[in-house]
Amino acid sequence: MTPEEFRRIGHRLVDWIADYRARAADLPVRSRVEPGSVRAQLPAAPPAQPEGFEGIFRDLERIILPGLSHWQHPNFYGYFPANGELASVLGDYLSTGLGVLGLSWQSSPALTELEELVTDWMRQMVGLSDAWSGVIQDTASTSALVALVCARERASNFSLARGGLQGEPRPLVVYVSGHSHSSVEKAALLAGFGRANVRAVATDERYAMRPGALAAAVRTDIERGLAPCAIVATTGTTTSTALDPVAEIADVARQHRLWLHADAAMAGSAMILPECRWMWEGIEGADSVVLNAHKWLGAAFDCSLYYVRDPEHLVRVMSTNPSYLQSAVDHRVKNLRDWGIPLGRRFRALKLWCLIREQGVEGLRARLRRDIANAQWLAGEIGAAPGWSVLAPVPLQTVCVRHEPSGVEGESLDGHTLAWAERVNRSGGAYLTPALLDGRWMVRVSIGSIPTERAHVEALWALMRREATRA
Amino acid sequence: MTPEEFRRIGHRLVDWIADYRARAADLPVRSRVEPGSVRAQLPAAPPAQPEGFEGIFRDLERIILPGLSHWQHPNFYGYFPANGELASVLGDYLSTGLGVLGLSWQSSPALTELEELVTDWMRQMVGLSDAWSGVIQDTASTSALVALVCARERASNFSLARGGLQGEPRPLVVYVSGHSHSSVEKAALLAGFGRANVRAVATDERYAMRPGALAAAVRTDIERGLAPCAIVATTGTTTSTALDPVAEIADVARQHRLWLHADAAMAGSAMILPECRWMWEGIEGADSVVLNAHKWLGAAFDCSLYYVRDPEHLVRVMSTNPSYLQSAVDHRVKNLRDWGIPLGRRFRALKLWCLIREQGVEGLRARLRRDIANAQWLAGEIGAAPGWSVLAPVPLQTVCVRHEPSGVEGESLDGHTLAWAERVNRSGGAYLTPALLDGRWMVRVSIGSIPTERAHVEALWALMRREATRA
Repeated sequence: MTPEEFRRIGHRLVDWIADYRARAADLPVRSRVEPGSVRAQLPAAPPAQPEGFEGIFRDLERIILPGLSHWQHPNFYGYFPANGELASVLGDYLSTGLGVLGLSWQSSPALTELEELVTDWMRQMVGLSDAWSGVIQDTASTSALVALVCARERASNFSLARGGLQGEPRPLVVYVSGHSHSSVEKAALLAGFGRANVRAVATDERYAMRPGALAAAVRTDIERGLAPCAIVATTGTTTSTALDPVAEIADVARQHRLWLHADAAMAGSAMILPECRWMWEGIEGADSVVLNAHKWLGAAFDCSLYYVRDPEHLVRVMSTNPSYLQSAVDHRVKNLRDWGIPLGRRFRALKLWCLIREQGVEGLRARLRRDIANAQWLAGEIGAAPGWSVLAPVPLQTVCVRHEPSGVEGESLDGHTLAWAERVNRSGGAYLTPALLDGRWMVRVSIGSIPTERAHVEALWALMRREATRA
Repeated sequence: MTPEEFRRIGHRLVDWIADYRARAADLPVRSRVEPGSVRAQLPAAPPAQPEGFEGIFRDLERIILPGLSHWQHPNFYGYFPANGELASVLGDYLSTGLGVLGLSWQSSPALTELEELVTDWMRQMVGLSDAWSGVIQDTASTSALVALVCARERASNFSLARGGLQGEPRPLVVYVSGHSHSSVEKAALLAGFGRANVRAVATDERYAMRPGALAAAVRTDIERGLAPCAIVATTGTTTSTALDPVAEIADVARQHRLWLHADAAMAGSAMILPECRWMWEGIEGADSVVLNAHKWLGAAFDCSLYYVRDPEHLVRVMSTNPSYLQSAVDHRVKNLRDWGIPLGRRFRALKLWCLIREQGVEGLRARLRRDIANAQWLAGEIGAAPGWSVLAPVPLQTVCVRHEPSGVEGESLDGHTLAWAERVNRSGGAYLTPALLDGRWMVRVSIGSIPTERAHVEALWALMRREATRA
């Protein structure tokens, strides 16, 4: 495709996306297609000859669009808010259009230096001290894996340079909570610790890790001859945005020289609000922190910010230096390939740079405060409504809710919960994703899509009541 | 940013990228900035108030552009060709603009189903049998890690569900070659095998792994009481596009029930050419294959295609199933979160779908054949020029070259090689990346940027001769 064809079709594509964002509110939020139906409408074999973009635009409208659940819909309340802000989308367009890669500093210097700059901007925005160095990873799942591998290598004094985990005398142990994200246990398993060496520490009535239980678990393992290695604390759990007490957990980590990884994938965005920083008090005691700018902050996916206090350790664990990647300036620059798993790297800093500049820190703060106020409003309405319950604290933008008609309990209550949530989703008027809390299903209302205003949340609440009380 | 602002600025941005691609040929290929100079020109703190896009476009021209090495320049011959085709760029623009995420099938069904479709298109295009299932990962580095973790779990009968590598009686061993990509050893170390359990098998005069040496190494390890686990064979090594003999290596793998991972990150694109398929003859004997569509094929980064013969094994290793990700249709769909490390997933299939449709398989083939012919032409010129040597076979698009003036040897020759390559790079007329081969520096000419025609390669050859023979 020539630059001139790109110009012509690109303009049409930008219009199509602008129109999509404007009309998304009129589409059913959750896709209504049946499994297999999208694929069945498309040719099973690739075209031998060029087809041009006409057919692509036609298939987008006819086949792809009905197959999407619309994350940028104002009534999207599923999973978590993500990827939405159009200023960031444009930053990503720049990255893809430039088509440069950061294999080393020299392979495109500005890619590395802008990533250094914007991760430092974000460090300042969330109130971390200048003892932290940042890098952009793809997701919090990958960041957790990087953190646990670094923990493993610190505890084993670089076993990777010897026999790996296969040569260690005492098994290393990782501590999480029952409310840690599933990716944390997955990371521990991928890193080779084994499920038998992952402890799920007990949580309290607010679904936060109990530091006393953590300390006891560590002591027990030491007595059994095991080697405690790492703790993962969560600021804003996935189910209910619960807040593990980072300061007290950091005390345990310090006492036993354990690696502390803070998973603030969701709530990290809120740390740009000074009034929210109590939520991760003690964060300076952690060894690594992840916060996903592609979630609530609105950056285009993927933009997971990973901060460490000891970048030399990270580089020592991750470093490779084959001749075909060396350059004469290597001793004077950061080579971000040594800050994570993949060698290749997009110019991801652009989407965060454009987001922060176009919105300004105050603009971003105003939007997040809007969402927190909407969640507080909804929690207030639910709490005041007979037969409805708010099931967990609402420090941020997620409300955990259940409709509990009198006499409906246990599995019947689960059935009722899943049924009304499904009716809401089928209606097309909103998208809600249920989850288990204390062994029972409840509904998470995760507020914070870019276009979600109070009126949308009011309409959601009316829809929830209608579908929950339908005969 | 509103959809209307996005439309206005988006048009301008598309024009800027179109102009960039058209004028890239007039820019110095490798950036001339000094370390730290890009960052030093930008504000150290984020803006409190919104700034708008005017300043961003100004800084792009003034600060970012001079800081780029231009991968889409017709005289870019460094590293490998990548990310370039504008049809694929537009597909990526659709993905970012739609802003949907594939956490599960239901979170956006078309995202999963189009990924199934296009990975199957590519399977057909490269001539793999329908015994293979594909998924898009970010990079070959990550794919190698996934492959080695899967190998580890097969060999250990799912040690991750027990004590991990920490509970295994016999150390597991991985076999690579001295010409395997650095990411392969890195993957083995991250997966916990340890450097002492990674064997670099000897290579032959064509830089291909010796199957006899591999078989001997496996036997020796068995005799020592170790547990051979996995082999990584490379189709198209990074240094010289050498071709490991996959069929013979697969025989060794089969005999000892070892996992065989085929790294065709670079050369996999060429398998769309029937005349090139001999290069990975025996590939059906592998357990996993990776090929990076974001390299020579031209898809926008990241688009690493990972194929496996036993997807159930992959899912069993990678699977997590927390309540907040479950849906009523899970038993009828693929949830691609269980096919790799990250949970979140962009709509990456769009960029490959647009590439294949807009170019057609024949269009893609024609471009790759152009590049192979250009490499053959250059190799012929070099081979016929006094004082110049082609150092390795040229099956694809990479020419390994050295200028060897009479009487210049050893470290002096290294100095000469690095000096003239640096003069070429400083001239702005081309970008070449040297590498070590048999312990001596040589220059890789990696042909295949989208706009690179014969005339550019002719000009490169003239520039190489001029700079190598400069007093």
